[in-house]
Amino acid sequence: MGDLCVRSVLVTGANRGIGLGFVQQLLGMPSPPQWVFAGCQDPKGQRAQVSGHSPPHLASAEVTDPASIQAAAASVGERLKGSGLNLLINNAAVLKVNSLDTETLKDMSEVYATNTIAPLLLSQAFLPLLKKAAQGNPGSGLSCSKAAIVNMSSTAGSIQDLYLWQYGQALSYRCSKAALNMLTRCQSMGYREHGILCVALHPGWVRTDMGGTLEDQVREFLSVGGMLKVLSSLSEKDTGTFLNWEGKVMAW
Amino acid sequence: MGDLCVRSVLVTGANRGIGLGFVQQLLGMPSPPQWVFAGCQDPKGQRAQVSGHSPPHLASAEVTDPASIQAAAASVGERLKGSGLNLLINNAAVLKVNSLDTETLKDMSEVYATNTIAPLLLSQAFLPLLKKAAQGNPGSGLSCSKAAIVNMSSTAGSIQDLYLWQYGQALSYRCSKAALNMLTRCQSMGYREHGILCVALHPGWVRTDMGGTLEDQVREFLSVGGMLKVLSSLSEKDTGTFLNWEGKVMAW
Ligand SMILES: NC(=O)c1ccc[n+]([C@@H]2O[C@H](COP(=O)([O-])OP(=O)(O)OC[C@H]3O[C@@H](n4cnc5c(N)ncnc54)[C@H](OP(=O)(O)O)[C@@H]3O)[C@@H](O)[C@H]2O)c1
Ligand SMILES: NC(=O)c1ccc[n+]([C@@H]2O[C@H](COP(=O)([O-])OP(=O)(O)OC[C@H]3O[C@@H](n4cnc5c(N)ncnc54)[C@H](OP(=O)(O)O)[C@@H]3O)[C@@H](O)[C@H]2O)c1
Repeated sequence: MGDLCVRSVLVTGANRGIGLGFVQQLLGMPSPPQWVFAGCQDPKGQRAQVSGHSPPHLASAEVTDPASIQAAAASVGERLKGSGLNLLINNAAVLKVNSLDTETLKDMSEVYATNTIAPLLLSQAFLPLLKKAAQGNPGSGLSCSKAAIVNMSSTAGSIQDLYLWQYGQALSYRCSKAALNMLTRCQSMGYREHGILCVALHPGWVRTDMGGTLEDQVREFLSVGGMLKVLSSLSEKDTGTFLNWEGKVMAW
Repeated sequence: MGDLCVRSVLVTGANRGIGLGFVQQLLGMPSPPQWVFAGCQDPKGQRAQVSGHSPPHLASAEVTDPASIQAAAASVGERLKGSGLNLLINNAAVLKVNSLDTETLKDMSEVYATNTIAPLLLSQAFLPLLKKAAQGNPGSGLSCSKAAIVNMSSTAGSIQDLYLWQYGQALSYRCSKAALNMLTRCQSMGYREHGILCVALHPGWVRTDMGGTLEDQVREFLSVGGMLKVLSSLSEKDTGTFLNWEGKVMAW
């Protein structure tokens, strides 16, 4: 266990919420990664709140735009100067709260593009860098210190649990996260031979713009701290699983 | 159990494959439904092979086009002359066989539109007719003779099983069917109060244009016969489940 020990991380959607929390806690670790890339769709915009004593490296990435993803991968690759990327955290996502009756083609498509297709495209674009990190760390087995894709899912996407149904049907979101869980399983099957671990995480119900501000929610600091601990503990047997911020296995 | 006893059915993608099989077997039953609507995206085209001794009623429905779906619902409603629709079988689907490496934004979007969003939009458009059928049959509990939405899924969309992974990664298809299973669960939660049963079915690996022609595949006749038997046996407790053509519960 202990701290997560990685040289380079990229977090998408890192200008606020859980993504920002990841960047801050990674930079605050006793031995922080040398490279923490904060992916923001508008890194010059007001919404990029990423700052602090040791600011992260910004990576411009509008995750529904393939060209923007390609440019981000090229720019990160250049800055890493030939070394690989250990950790890709696909965190950016959107939530639209429609009901079964009011759900639309447009929202279904847009949410799927951001929450499901983008993590696929990002993983494809960063695959060479992830492979490089895995090759540069030839110890046996899989781990996040070697190379990993972390997809931020939700138990709202658990087909069995239908978490928080009474709070919002949010079809487009639930479908996108169930599909993201499928993507994670497929990635774990396909990328195992490349030494890349793949996992889907549920952060808990967290106080953010997306999560809202109810009293019984998990604080973002606790959630992210928990997830970093979980990530540090993952090994071969965990690839392709769906875990919450406390390390418990969630139902598909 | 016994035969499925319904007055009206609509099957999408009914000009070939499993959809055509449904229409043929429904019409061939000892007491066939009075109304069997065969949904075809091009009912005048060569591909509409729907014919026979007692031809079905054609319903023009390009399922990715909201206007076409609305028109189909209006036309079916008119022909039913005030009575409801008992059974909506969302069968139309597409399969694109890409790998993790070659999967594209375009295919992910298109397959999701046909396999996941279309069943949502069709269910919304036909909801008034399904509700009417349920109200016209006030017996307690849910059943397919009363009102039901049947989503043709696949164990290729089972996140746990990743059925036939070695034959094709087909990410876009797997993600779309996992999301369709989620949709089915959500519909079962939302439509229970309206008296509408919702179920996801896996037809087996069936000899069709989509399924291919391997020796050990299920014949379409057997698969459809099995599914009709399963449908006839469903009750309250089965809404929101994922069953195969032999009635076995499948893993999400
Ligand atoms: N909060 C919860 O309770 C909860 C529960 C379960 C799962 N999750 C998951 O946890 C992750 C983070 O959630 P959160 O609560 O931190 O959400 P949030 O506060 O709404 O933040 C979402 C982040 O995603 C970014 N983003 C959205 N669309 C983007 C795009 N097209 N390109 C680039 N970035 C984009 C946003 O950037 P902008 O600021 O530029 O819009 C923002 O940085 C998500 O995957 C979410 O589904 C959250
Ligand atoms: N065959 C298998 O082994 C298998 C296994 C698991 C699940 N399934 C599922 O079973 C269902 C039927 O599969 P199948 O094997 O019969 O497939 P198929 O032989 O490829 O037939 C697909 C049907 O869907 C229609 N369709 C496609 N896109 C459409 C659109 N936009 N609008 C209207 N209709 C459209 C096609 O119409 P056109 O002729 O006009 O293209 C055709 O009638 C599908 O949901 C499939 O995913 C099949």
